Amino acid sequence: MQRYFVTQSYADAQENGFKLTGDDYHHAVNVMRMKVKDHCFLVFTDQRAIIGEIINISEEDVEFKEISKESQNKELPVHVTIASGYPKGDKLELVVQKGTELGASEFVGFPAKSSVVKWDAKKLAKKGDRLVKIAKEAAEQSHRQFQPTVKLLTSEKELLELAKDYDHVLIAYEEAAKSGEQGQLVKTLSVVKPGESILVVFGPEGGLTPQEVGSFETAGGKVCALGPRILRTETAPFYLLSAISYQLELLT
Amino acid sequence: MQRYFVTQSYADAQENGFKLTGDDYHHAVNVMRMKVKDHCFLVFTDQRAIIGEIINISEEDVEFKEISKESQNKELPVHVTIASGYPKGDKLELVVQKGTELGASEFVGFPAKSSVVKWDAKKLAKKGDRLVKIAKEAAEQSHRQFQPTVKLLTSEKELLELAKDYDHVLIAYEEAAKSGEQGQLVKTLSVVKPGESILVVFGPEGGLTPQEVGSFETAGGKVCALGPRILRTETAPFYLLSAISYQLELLT
Repeated sequence: MQRYFVTQSYADAQENGFKLTGDDYHHAVNVMRMKVKDHCFLVFTDQRAIIGEIINISEEDVEFKEISKESQNKELPVHVTIASGYPKGDKLELVVQKGTELGASEFVGFPAKSSVVKWDAKKLAKKGDRLVKIAKEAAEQSHRQFQPTVKLLTSEKELLELAKDYDHVLIAYEEAAKSGEQGQLVKTLSVVKPGESILVVFGPEGGLTPQEVGSFETAGGKVCALGPRILRTETAPFYLLSAISYQLELLT
Repeated sequence: MQRYFVTQSYADAQENGFKLTGDDYHHAVNVMRMKVKDHCFLVFTDQRAIIGEIINISEEDVEFKEISKESQNKELPVHVTIASGYPKGDKLELVVQKGTELGASEFVGFPAKSSVVKWDAKKLAKKGDRLVKIAKEAAEQSHRQFQPTVKLLTSEKELLELAKDYDHVLIAYEEAAKSGEQGQLVKTLSVVKPGESILVVFGPEGGLTPQEVGSFETAGGKVCALGPRILRTETAPFYLLSAISYQLELLT
């Protein structure tokens, strides 16, 4: 069933009416060709979701009545932020699309020392808009109740500042895989509590430099390996998010 | 350090000399511009790997002497085959590239009932060659000791035949995620023993039909969910392989 994110809380929408407007209106009416009595999911900013039935389609909005609430929780029990040193080409787009399907709450891009690409403010703004759209579509498609946010930073310092706000900070480091480190991810996932936040830092293609790893360690980060194989910069977040889901959603 | 797969066993190569020829010769000499005394990894067909030092570069081959053996095991303790109902476009390429990094041993493509693409024998042969090459490059890059194989089938019946040879068969089924099934993957991974084989069947974009799921169940398959979110056909194998690595390489 089609799924739309509404930019209001459930309570506000209850007061104002359950409505789709703008792009979502266009998608529902012109792309999906939905009609009165059709059903779809509506997800609100407070992560609540309902199944709605269309009761009216005007020139400007589609109006719904609530049929039932979505009971199954689709969100990871922890808030996971994926921080990627700017990689080449469209890799960040892949990280955001797949990372959203796999449950990430937030994506942060930052200029790492080995980042080859140098994006100016204009390019970053354009890239950001595109990534928000990709996250929205992937969240709808994967039946999320939360639409991940995107922040594209202009300095690594900002990320070190952000790190202070997290309960746990992990640093995915290629050298840790090579040296046979196997324990840190398991260790962190065994102490993390529901509702806590995890920031995981990934380097670009060239990896993080030892100096960068040092800075993140000083900010409270812990180096971890994601198995013994060397994962590309865009693949590593998929491993991390899947392992978090397996440990916190399937095993427990 | 660069890594090359040699098409001989370690014992045979010991007898014949440790050599790179053909495409790998070209890559080492002309792309990497390697010289006498340079080091790289050589991986043999029996999954053994050494660090070799170049002792001679002729017009036809690069010859090495053994410096040391690679001690760390890079392979999953179980043999995992990813079977994908033919998806659209280049998605199979993404599955093979990322799936190789994440440790899969084999990739099988098959025409599922909802597969939109219809590939004839010629197209399949071409696609197969391309996928073998992608697997080889990803295996080198991710420091694998085994180069995954690729089989592109022309009927679903062949896959049902193949399923008989596996110790465990799992069916990744979207409806299982929707119904809240959480236990089968954990269950299977808690009984699988080192050296055993697991076949996991994934549908194309439209999913597997209930009839297809029934056939695979009759062939011994068990339906499993990969967390509560709906994953795209190309994303689901990443979750599965990461969960297998987390359970069998990090947790135990």
